[in-house]
Order: sequence, then structure tokens, then C-alpha cells
Amino acid sequence: MDLGISDRAAPLIAAIKDMIAAQIAPVEAEFAAEVGKHPDGRFALTDRQIAIMEGLKQTARDRGLWNFWLTGSDAGYGLTTVEYAYLAEEMGKSTLAAEVFNCNAPDTGNMEVLERYGSAAHKERWLKPSLAGKIRSAYAMTEPDVASSDATNIALQAMRDGDDYVLNGEKWWISGAGDPRCKLVIVMAQTDPEAAKHQRHSMFLMDMDTPGLRILRPMQVFGHDDAPHGHMHLEFKDVRVPTDQMVLGQGRGFEVAQGRLGPGRIHHCMRAIGQAERALELLCERAVTRRAFGKPLAELGANFDIIADARIQIEATRLLCLKAAWMMDTAGTRAAQPWISMIKVAAPLMALRVVDEAMQMHGGMGVSQDTPLAWMWTQLRTLRFADGPDAVHRRQVARAELKKYVKDTK
Amino acid sequence: MDLGISDRAAPLIAAIKDMIAAQIAPVEAEFAAEVGKHPDGRFALTDRQIAIMEGLKQTARDRGLWNFWLTGSDAGYGLTTVEYAYLAEEMGKSTLAAEVFNCNAPDTGNMEVLERYGSAAHKERWLKPSLAGKIRSAYAMTEPDVASSDATNIALQAMRDGDDYVLNGEKWWISGAGDPRCKLVIVMAQTDPEAAKHQRHSMFLMDMDTPGLRILRPMQVFGHDDAPHGHMHLEFKDVRVPTDQMVLGQGRGFEVAQGRLGPGRIHHCMRAIGQAERALELLCERAVTRRAFGKPLAELGANFDIIADARIQIEATRLLCLKAAWMMDTAGTRAAQPWISMIKVAAPLMALRVVDEAMQMHGGMGVSQDTPLAWMWTQLRTLRFADGPDAVHRRQVARAELKKYVKDTK
Amino acid sequence: MDLGISDRAAPLIAAIKDMIAAQIAPVEAEFAAEVGKHPDGRFALTDRQIAIMEGLKQTARDRGLWNFWLTGSDAGYGLTTVEYAYLAEEMGKSTLAAEVFNCNAPDTGNMEVLERYGSAAHKERWLKPSLAGKIRSAYAMTEPDVASSDATNIALQAMRDGDDYVLNGEKWWISGAGDPRCKLVIVMAQTDPEAAKHQRHSMFLMDMDTPGLRILRPMQVFGHDDAPHGHMHLEFKDVRVPTDQMVLGQGRGFEVAQGRLGPGRIHHCMRAIGQAERALELLCERAVTRRAFGKPLAELGANFDIIADARIQIEATRLLCLKAAWMMDTAGTRAAQPWISMIKVAAPLMALRVVDEAMQMHGGMGVSQDTPLAWMWTQLRTLRFADGPDAVHRRQVARAELKKYVKDTK
Amino acid sequence: MDLGISDRAAPLIAAIKDMIAAQIAPVEAEFAAEVGKHPDGRFALTDRQIAIMEGLKQTARDRGLWNFWLTGSDAGYGLTTVEYAYLAEEMGKSTLAAEVFNCNAPDTGNMEVLERYGSAAHKERWLKPSLAGKIRSAYAMTEPDVASSDATNIALQAMRDGDDYVLNGEKWWISGAGDPRCKLVIVMAQTDPEAAKHQRHSMFLMDMDTPGLRILRPMQVFGHDDAPHGHMHLEFKDVRVPTDQMVLGQGRGFEVAQGRLGPGRIHHCMRAIGQAERALELLCERAVTRRAFGKPLAELGANFDIIADARIQIEATRLLCLKAAWMMDTAGTRAAQPWISMIKVAAPLMALRVVDEAMQMHGGMGVSQDTPLAWMWTQLRTLRFADGPDAVHRRQVARAELKKYVKDTK
Repeated sequence: MDLGISDRAAPLIAAIKDMIAAQIAPVEAEFAAEVGKHPDGRFALTDRQIAIMEGLKQTARDRGLWNFWLTGSDAGYGLTTVEYAYLAEEMGKSTLAAEVFNCNAPDTGNMEVLERYGSAAHKERWLKPSLAGKIRSAYAMTEPDVASSDATNIALQAMRDGDDYVLNGEKWWISGAGDPRCKLVIVMAQTDPEAAKHQRHSMFLMDMDTPGLRILRPMQVFGHDDAPHGHMHLEFKDVRVPTDQMVLGQGRGFEVAQGRLGPGRIHHCMRAIGQAERALELLCERAVTRRAFGKPLAELGANFDIIADARIQIEATRLLCLKAAWMMDTAGTRAAQPWISMIKVAAPLMALRVVDEAMQMHGGMGVSQDTPLAWMWTQLRTLRFADGPDAVHRRQVARAELKKYVKDTK
Repeated sequence: MDLGISDRAAPLIAAIKDMIAAQIAPVEAEFAAEVGKHPDGRFALTDRQIAIMEGLKQTARDRGLWNFWLTGSDAGYGLTTVEYAYLAEEMGKSTLAAEVFNCNAPDTGNMEVLERYGSAAHKERWLKPSLAGKIRSAYAMTEPDVASSDATNIALQAMRDGDDYVLNGEKWWISGAGDPRCKLVIVMAQTDPEAAKHQRHSMFLMDMDTPGLRILRPMQVFGHDDAPHGHMHLEFKDVRVPTDQMVLGQGRGFEVAQGRLGPGRIHHCMRAIGQAERALELLCERAVTRRAFGKPLAELGANFDIIADARIQIEATRLLCLKAAWMMDTAGTRAAQPWISMIKVAAPLMALRVVDEAMQMHGGMGVSQDTPLAWMWTQLRTLRFADGPDAVHRRQVARAELKKYVKDTK
Repeated sequence: MDLGISDRAAPLIAAIKDMIAAQIAPVEAEFAAEVGKHPDGRFALTDRQIAIMEGLKQTARDRGLWNFWLTGSDAGYGLTTVEYAYLAEEMGKSTLAAEVFNCNAPDTGNMEVLERYGSAAHKERWLKPSLAGKIRSAYAMTEPDVASSDATNIALQAMRDGDDYVLNGEKWWISGAGDPRCKLVIVMAQTDPEAAKHQRHSMFLMDMDTPGLRILRPMQVFGHDDAPHGHMHLEFKDVRVPTDQMVLGQGRGFEVAQGRLGPGRIHHCMRAIGQAERALELLCERAVTRRAFGKPLAELGANFDIIADARIQIEATRLLCLKAAWMMDTAGTRAAQPWISMIKVAAPLMALRVVDEAMQMHGGMGVSQDTPLAWMWTQLRTLRFADGPDAVHRRQVARAELKKYVKDTK
Repeated sequence: MDLGISDRAAPLIAAIKDMIAAQIAPVEAEFAAEVGKHPDGRFALTDRQIAIMEGLKQTARDRGLWNFWLTGSDAGYGLTTVEYAYLAEEMGKSTLAAEVFNCNAPDTGNMEVLERYGSAAHKERWLKPSLAGKIRSAYAMTEPDVASSDATNIALQAMRDGDDYVLNGEKWWISGAGDPRCKLVIVMAQTDPEAAKHQRHSMFLMDMDTPGLRILRPMQVFGHDDAPHGHMHLEFKDVRVPTDQMVLGQGRGFEVAQGRLGPGRIHHCMRAIGQAERALELLCERAVTRRAFGKPLAELGANFDIIADARIQIEATRLLCLKAAWMMDTAGTRAAQPWISMIKVAAPLMALRVVDEAMQMHGGMGVSQDTPLAWMWTQLRTLRFADGPDAVHRRQVARAELKKYVKDTK
């Protein structure tokens, strides 16, 4: 069980760190400051934003720092999930890096759907430009009116009508759908309410500009709209999608959804580790430079304990994420499932604690626009319910545990 | 030790609840939606905002629901702190109520400074219109460059020059200073760096439009600027203040600051209790109406335990706040000091936990603009360092405790 | 809502403190050291133990410090539950005090059963000598083979046979049944498995030496047998009890059990508060006298925070207990029920945390026979399931909360 | 960084599991029941105890299951620390296994001292019989009168007198010193109070029956004396030790102490992991078989969450221990130091939480003599201060972390 940094991964990590430090970090503030300057509003990219991002992407492509997430694939580096995990951690420390290296969510998960389950036509139309970083995509699962943590509740209707399905309903928290470059949306819809519980739903691919599909509003995360990426509230009103834009076939929506989620959750968790590391760094820098009562903050009160606990929790949680990645690599998605649920609970909680302590060490500055901590915290907080709330993942872990003792625990 | 609702307080609580439910709550969303519509920006009040607020204030005055915070005073109701605490709890459940009843921070603390320590001229110029709700005020203590948790660090300089003091430096997190109706700012400045530790600072009263005083920017709280109230970053550049606008006298800044903080912290804590109650209400409503896995959320997982712990913690913390208020009423500010530090640690932490669980019960909706929970959480989070970070208050509590065992613990 | 120390209670508290300090505490170690010296084993009292205890009881009776727990009664002081709570806190700091003042569990609860529900004959036979401190008693509810947290599970059978009931089954954790002075045992048994859920059980009074009733063994609490008091495992083999030794009537066992538990839980919780206070005292004494790294322990690491949190939690929890007592006094057992469940969860958890920190501050000494801390911790740990485990009480609190929102939550 | 079970370790783990299940576990209760039956008291071994233990040891030796702890050595298996860690975990699940396989504390640490630092004569006299399992040994560091967490405080005096040192003072918590087979005690004593801080102490080897060395009493751990192993309070009164029984040389006590502690702490932590696994097993078995309110306990309240959190914490902590072991194997004791401090904090805390939940799931039975849980809990609780209290280890972790930011943090 080798959880270390491989010889293949080491130079890639170094190159990513280097490019983030030298080229990406220096322009992050400028990119953020552009938000809202376009006359069309916050969800339009300014020329300057386009120039920054496309320039960085070109550099990344030129340096071969691209599409690392394609684990176990002939395309790209063919990294293992463990190897990629270390890269994801580094990217988590920067607000722009994941996109620069074409490794951003939800696009990577969407590309995986296309690669694993898409038809040749689907691949040509959407996977190719996605892999090239030409378009972006969104994944529409969550709905406002049902508890989407139990995905069998998904209620957006898709009714067969000739060669089309006609979709009606609402989705919200559709991340990335605000971006004007978002061209594809993958939609889970109910195609047969009478079918067996896990065969009721199907997965559709459709263009963002399909008639009847409308952005109602951006959802806010503690007051952030995360423009231009955005988490959009969408309305589907008689949206017609041809049957050949269905993935795999009617009733196979769950199969696609399950296949999509494993790696994405590991990536999220490793980026959370990266954010926790960045937060601890800021905490320590503050602790050794800021003084009160005649001493550096580091030497006051419980601060040694706070720093030690942060370090302990980061290390333990990183190892757990790496083990989940290793399970994915060696034992497959199904066997890795409880491990992914474990890190999905553990990593965001841990990172939130570390960021919270880092904020507290900074006083008012910690919640303000002057550090990335408040932004980190709000991002991380959404991870506690995105891709399934903690309670659902704990339930999965517990059921896997109890299976050892009894056959039929519900 | 009567910590209950007195016969005098009961009808006031009822009247406040009634006015919030019938008149204030219905217009809160409209008031918030006006932010940013004024051509001068987010920190200007629109005509509609003025109409809403002044209308409500007039109603409050007409109904005698005004200036309750004047505890132990001949003016107003002469409520005890315990009595007022129950009123503050109710006001905490609404975003506008405190201002409607002229009980909003930081104005109440500032009015207390004027009443206790102000000269007749100070009272005429600033207290009278404040009590009438005609002007608002700010209190400028915290600075960006020093750890203000140790107030002896305060470094903004005030140099005597003839009949004036000349102030130079920066303050930040000056709440309420964004509001165009804010006319007074109370500033703590260093007047003699060579004096004994607690005699180095003095307190000044000055108009917000004093030349040289400039708003650099609004500070954001997790991305919220809390406009039009605002938490401003201020610059003082050769700001001249006549000596007769000093409170009490040179070197007595600490005395004023200490006198100001006790009641304000109790009010903050009781408003936090009110927010926790409101959050638990939202949590329970969601828990009984939303369904997953065939059951209402209330019956799933740890939700009974979460609800019970929230109820237990709210009740225990409310009682602790009431005891601190009772100490203030019966034993005085000095004896109440450790009690106030206790609730300053306990109440925000408790309320944050309850709001966090309420957010989690709502999934994505919980962090969005569709419930008040995200706003509550961000507000409450600042209470963990505003008026002294948790660590400083814990230190005070511990030192008071250890004094029983040893004479000279540092 | 007066939660303070009344004028009536103040001198009693002082007298109790005084007698504990002057007469009880000095002989506690000697009393404990006698355990095991009697040739009949650990559950026999030595002459010295009898001399100590009876001497102290005589003094207590002579000073009128006796039977305080008889709240709201003509007998004794007629104290309110709030008043008694403060006395119980003091008694909790000593291992022998509760018995000395005839206020020890489970006897007080048993006497309450006799007073409220007993016949004249029951009172003459068992209440009178109990009130006089001549005999002790036990209460037999919990069984080894069923989850007694759900009391409807109680399975010890009582079959009617002529003028007797014949009991068969086992009970365990029967506290006080080890004491040779224990003469009465109150037994809950199933009399009709076909009756409605809460009418299946009845309550019996019987002598400890009833034929067929046998002590199988003492249960240990983390290795302590708590001799001579003891927590016994009992066997009932064809034990015959005359029908007139049934309390209230067949099928009314739950009614008696419910009536019994409220005050007892408050007493337990207030004694836990007393233990937490005693532990914090030991912690602080150690913290100011023991030195490491050139400083008293108090000034190292997180110790200020630990002390402050202990103080905050003790104060908040005490107030919660007092409020529960006040509810019992003013609103009755039924309305007080959720409040009692709240403190039953909160007080032992809080006290365990404080004692745990006190142990940690003492290092090895803290878990040894050289401080009372290890004994306190083990005692307190049993409170988390005795009289209902935390989970059951949290369930009660949650259901009471949710009742406000929905009619029929299970 | 291979943290998995190696091909070499796998069959050893299987053999250990097998021997524990088939031969050791079945006699543990009988061995424990013998304690106290010897006429000389609890700290004498009965013939039956000797027969059991020596029989098991002979079997272990015959099967080659012996002295695994000799990591990186030519003697024995030459296992890595990572490999041994997995074995230690298994041994932690049994009360007798570690001794059966000659891998028990404190003997392994003492043998390491002898192997690394002992002279040829020391090895012949004490190491040889220790490796053969013929004698046992103790390690005497902690003292009653000083905070031994700061080892520079160690005050037991050793004064040079001719060819001897003369020792005077007390030690306590000397584990294993109660066992009649304990022949060697390694004693840290102060030889020069004027020397530099870390050169004041020296390490001595001496027979347990050296004149002047006396057992004052066994220390109790929550009422357990852990006989016949024991944690003894020792008195040294003019104890003469020849200079050639000093290890390494005068003033080198710290060097020896440091070298001794690393591996031992890893072993302790991995045994704690084993205990946590055993506790979770008991918890789950109870949760699926015991019923209340019409359901198995597993499906009630927060039990899914409790089980999931236990599983998550066990896995993360095990990985952290393995990483510390790997650091020891690949980077050496010094580099591994902060990692060892991390697990020394994390593993006992985690195991205590899991055992505590397992106790709670069992109700009264959980703290009684009927499960191993209470014994596990008390054992584990001592680990939070043995070999350095949590606070000291957190301090080490924090200082290692802050070193990255500043040169001279104290």
C-alpha cells in the first residue's frame, strides 16, 4: 500500500507548485477584482479575465501540465488516483489553478461521464472540446423541492414524446452554469416513476442554450455568488432533448451518477487538505509575527495546542484520503465506496476546523476580504452537503460496518 | 436571584414580539433588497429605506417602545439588565428590530458613554439627537496594525497642538460608520506613550465629517459588507479635535472603554440567544416537513440528538446570560466582569453551533439567500473576536478563578 | 423565577459545609480503609464503620440536619426543590455526607415512593425506620437480559398465586443492596404481559431476606465494588410476596416509577455539580503549586482555557439544574419532565469533563488512590446510563421540542 | 511509503491471531481470576498462573512467535517498525498476548536500552534472560514530588561514593515492578545538579532486590492495581549501585531516555488501535442484537453516526501510526519525533472515545466486570500522561511546526 509521492508524480507536483507561485497566484486578485466590471453583469467574463485565464491555460498546455485527472487512462499521464491526489492538494491552495490545469470541478466529473458512458457522437461533440479546455460544463442533480440527499427523490420530469424527451422542473446549486463558456449540462431526470426505485431516472446531455432552459438566479454561499463560475438555479420548461442525447439508456441514471462521484469526491477532499495546509500556514505566520501582552500570539493561551491539533488532523486526514484513493486504484469503485464516504465526512470537517482557527488567530482580518480564509471557509462549508450530506455518508459507513455483524440491517 | 420575566417586562416583550411579527418582519426583505439601488452606492439609503425605517421608528415611539436599554435610569423605563435581556433576545430574531426600537449597537453603548461620562455640551450636541433616533454613531477602537485584543496596543496618535489634538492613524471594523446618518464617532487614541500602561489613552468625540477623517473601504464579513450599516476602515490624517471634545480627561480612555463594554456584551449575547432560538425553530420546521428515505428528516440519523443538544445548550446559556445581567444589576460592573467574559465566550459559540446544525438540516438552502441562517452565522462568527476574542475572555475567567488560590498569578 | 439561595437555605448550607469540613471529611479515609476488614467480607460493616456512621448520624440528628430532601412536605423543613438542590450540591463533595444527613440515594427515592403511594401499613413498616435512618433500602428495576432503558422491556415475572405473587427472574445494578442494613427492596415486575404497554408492570415491596431472593454477586464499576453499599446482581427464584405488599395496585408500576424519578435525578445532578466544583478546586490547587518548564502549570499550554471552560460549564449547568428544580416546584412533575431530561444529559457530561481535566492536570496521581478524582469519575460515568441513558433523555427532549411543530411525531 | 502489510508480516499476523483465538483468549479469564489467591497476596503468582503463562510462552517460542519487536536487528525477524506495528495491534486486543510473545512493555523498551547502550556484562546479565523470557524488568522515571513531564525535574539523587553511587528518593508508577519475576530495574537519577540541564542525570541498572530498594505500595488505576504486573511506588534509601552498572556514563541519562521512548510509544499506540477495534466490534455486536423501542439499538438515535465516526477515526489514526513507524524506519528517531508526539496524542484519545461509546452502548454492563471495556478504558486513560502528557506532546508538535516560520520560538 504505497501512499507516498511516486517518482512520476514528484516532478509534476514541483511544476504545479512552481507555476502557481510564479504565474497563477500573482494574478488571482486581479482576476477576482474584474468580477462585476463587465456591462452584462457578474456572470460575464471581461476581456481581461479571458486574457488571464486563456494565457495561463496556454502556458499550462505548453508545459504539459494538463488533464492530470484522467487516472488509469491512456490519454494524458495515466496517473493513479493516489498520484493525482497529491496534485489536487496543491491545486486546492489556489483559486484559479484547477481551471488552469483543466482539472476543475465539475468539468472533470463530467468528462469522466462522457469518456466512460458517452457515445462516439457525445465524445466528439462535448468531450473533445472539454479535454481541450475550450468549453465548460455543468452537472444538474440537486432540486429545490426534494431532499436530494436521497437521490431517488429526484423529481424533474422527462416525458417521452416521439424522438424527444420533454423536461419540466427545476434544479438548483448547478455549479459552473453561470460561466458563459459553459456549453454542456448533464441532467438527471425522472423518466419512469413506476419503475423499480433505482431504474426510475435517466441522464441527459444538453446544450446550455437549449430552448426552455433558463437561469432563474445565482444561489449565494454566505453572500458570495462565486461569479463568474456561479451556482445557478435553473428552470426547465418544456425543454426538448433528442433521445440520442440520453446516456447509456433509459433508467440507467443511477448507474451513471454512481460512476461519476467516486473520483470527484476524492479530488474535493484533497483540495480541502490543500486549503487546510494553506490555512495553517497563514495561522502560523500570524502567530509568530503578531504580538499581544508582550509575546507573539504563538506563545499565548491554547495556541500551541491549536497548532498541534491542526497538524495532527491534517496528517491523519490526508493519509485517509490517500488510502481511499489507493482503494479506488486497486480494489475498484464499489470496494472504495465506504472509504470515500469516510473522507467525505472527515476532510471538510477537518479543514473547516483548521480554517476556523486560522480566522480566529487573525481576528477581524480573518473574516474579511484581506485573507483567503473567509472564502475558503464558505467553500468548504458547502462540501458538508454537496455530493451528499455528512449524515448520508455516515449512514453508508455505518451500514458497511454493520454488514459484518448481521445480514439484513436496513 | 430572580432571573424570570418580571410583570413589568412581560407586556413589553409581548408588544415587541407583536410589532416585529406584524410590522417589521414583513418589510425586512424589501429593506434588504434596496441595498445598492441608490446611485451613490450601497452605503447610501434609498428613499424607500428611509421611509420604511422612519415609519417604523415613529410607530415604535408612538407605542412607547423606545430606548429600553437605558437600564437603571430615570429616563425611559428604568428596566433592570435582566429585564432588558429578555427584550434584547426578541430583537435578536429580527434584522431591523433593534434599530426600530432605538436599541441598536453600537449606538446604545455610545449613548451610555455620553450619559455617564459626557459633558453637558456633549449631551446636548450628540446624546439628545441619539436618544431621539435622529442620528447614529460609531465607536472606533480596533486598528489594523496592532492586536487590539490587548487594548494597551492601541496606536492611533493624538498629539496636543494648542487647543486641539491632532489625530493620525487608522481604525478598522468601525461598525455603523457606513451609514449616512452616522454623525458621531467616538475614537480611542494614544495621547501619551510614556504614561502608565492604562493612562496612555484618551477618548475623543468627533463629527464624522471632520476634515481629515476618511472612509477607506468597507470591511467584508464573509463577503457581506452589511450595507448600509457597514464596518468601515477609516483613515485619520491630521484630524483636528478641540480639547473639549475629549471625554473625562487625558489618560482616561481605558476608564471610559471599560464602563462602556459590560452592558453591550450582555445585549450582544442575548441577541445571540434570540438568533439561536430562531435557528432552532427553522431547523425543527425543516425536520418535520422535509422527507428522505421514507421518513421526515427529524426521525433520521442523529437528528433527535442534535435537536436535544441545541435545546439544552440554549437554555443553559440563556440562564448564564441572565445571571451575568443579574450580577450587573446587583453587584456592579466590576463584580460582573468574569460573568460577562463567561457569556461572551459561551453565547456566540453556542449560537454558532445551533445555526450550523440548522444550516446542515437545510442542505444548500441553508447557506443561501433563501434563509436568514447564513447571515446569522456570519454575524455571530464576528462576535467571537469583537469586543475581545474568546481567548482573552477565557484568560479573564481563568485569572478570576485562580485568584482564589494564589495571590500573584500573572 | 428565584434560583438563588433563600434565607431559609443559607444557614442550612453553612451548617452542612461546617459539619462536612469539621466532622465528616476527617473520617472518610478511615471509613474507606475499613472496607474488607470484616471477616464476612467487603459487604459487611466493621464495628468501626458502624461507630463512625452512627455517630455522625446522631450528631446530624441532634443538630437538626436531617431528611432535607422531603421537599414540599410538612415533615422536615419543607424545603423547595431549589433550596434542596443547593444542599445536595454540598453533599456531593463528600463520600459520606448524603448518608449522614439521611439524604442518600436510593433511599430518598424509596421513601418518596412510600410516602406518596404506600399504604398505612407500608409506612409503618418501612417508611418510619427509613426516615429515622434505622434501615436502608434498594430499588430493583434494571435487568441483565433486556434493554431497561425502554422500561416496557422489564421481564421479571410476578405470577398471581392465591394471596401471593410469585416472582422469578434477575435484576442487576441494584445499588445499596450490598449493605447489611438494607432491609427493603422495591421491585418492578411484569404482572400481565397481555395488558396495555404501560399497564403490564407492578411495583412490589419486600424484605431483603425474603426466601428465594439471593445476591449473586456485586457488580463492579471500573473495578470498584463500592462496598459496603454495592451494586448487586440479584436472583429471584419463586419469591413469594403477599398481594398487600404491592404498591397502588396491579398494573400501576409505571405510575410509581415515573413519580419516583424526577426529584432523584435532580439530586444526582446537583451532587454532580458539587463533584465538578470539588474537581475544579483540586485542579486549580495543583495548577498553582506544581511547576514544569520553569512555570506553574497554570501558565502552561491551554490551562487557562481549560480552567475557564470548566468554570463556564459548571455555572451554566448549575443554573440549568436549578431551573429544572424550579419547574418541579412550580409547574409539577409532568411539565418539569423535559427539563429533568435536559439536566440528566448535561450535568454528568459536564462533570465528567471537569473531572477528566482535573485528572489530567494531576498526571498519574489523578487516576490513583491519592485523590478522589478517579472515584468521582467512575461514579459520574454510571450516571450517563443510570435512570436512563443519555440517548433516551435526548429523545425525550427532542420529542418535547418537536411537539411544538407537529402533532404526531413518533 | 508502503504502509501496507508486507508478505513477511502477513503470515505472522495470521499466526498471532490464531494463537490468541485458540490458546490465549480462552485462558485469560482464568488467569485474571487467580489474582489474589496466592497466600502472599495479589502480587504473587499462583502455580496455576505460572503454568498458564509459561506454557503459552513455550508454545510461542516453539512456533517461532517471539521477540518480534527487535526491529531492524539481526536477532529475531528483523521486522520493520511498520511490520511490527500491525503485530502490536493484534496483541493489543488481548490482555496476555504481549507477554506470551515476549513483546510486553516495559520489557521491550528495557531490552532496547540494554541492546543499544548496555555493556557486554549488562547484556550477559540482563539482556540474555530478558530475550529468553526468563526475567522481567521495570523502568523507573516518574517521581511523586516533581512534574516528571518535564524530565529535567527528576530529583532522585545519586551521589558518588567510592566505586558506588548511593541513591535516595522515591519513584512511582513503576509498571511491572510488582511482578515477582521482575529482576531488573532501570533508574534515572540526578548525578550532578550543577551540570547543564540535559547532562544532570544518569541511568542505572540494578537488581530489584538491591538492599534499600523497597516497594511502598501498588498505585491504583481507577481502583485497579493491575496485579500481578502492578504500578509500584518505590523507595530508594541509601541504595548502593556500583559505577559499572551505569549506562553509557555519567550525565548521559537523557540520551538513553530519548533513545528508549520512540518505538515504545508506537507500540503503545498500535495496541490502542487494537483495543479500539475490539471495542468497536463489541459495540456493533451489541447494537445488532440488543433491542429497545421495537428496534435493534443500531437503528436508534445517533448510533449510525457513532459507528461511522468510530470507523473513520480508527482508520485515520491507524494510518497516522503507520506513518510514524515508517518515519522511524526510514528517517530515524529524530525526524520521527514529531510524528511520534502526534500519535501519542491522537491514538489514546481516539481509542478512549471509541471505548467510551462502546461502554455507553452496553449500559451498566459496559462499566462492569462482564466486558473488557472498563479495563480497556482505564488502561488507555493512563496513556494520556504516561510517556509524557498530551500537553507536552502537543507542545512538541507545535514547536516543530513553528520552526518553519521562525528561528527562535521558545
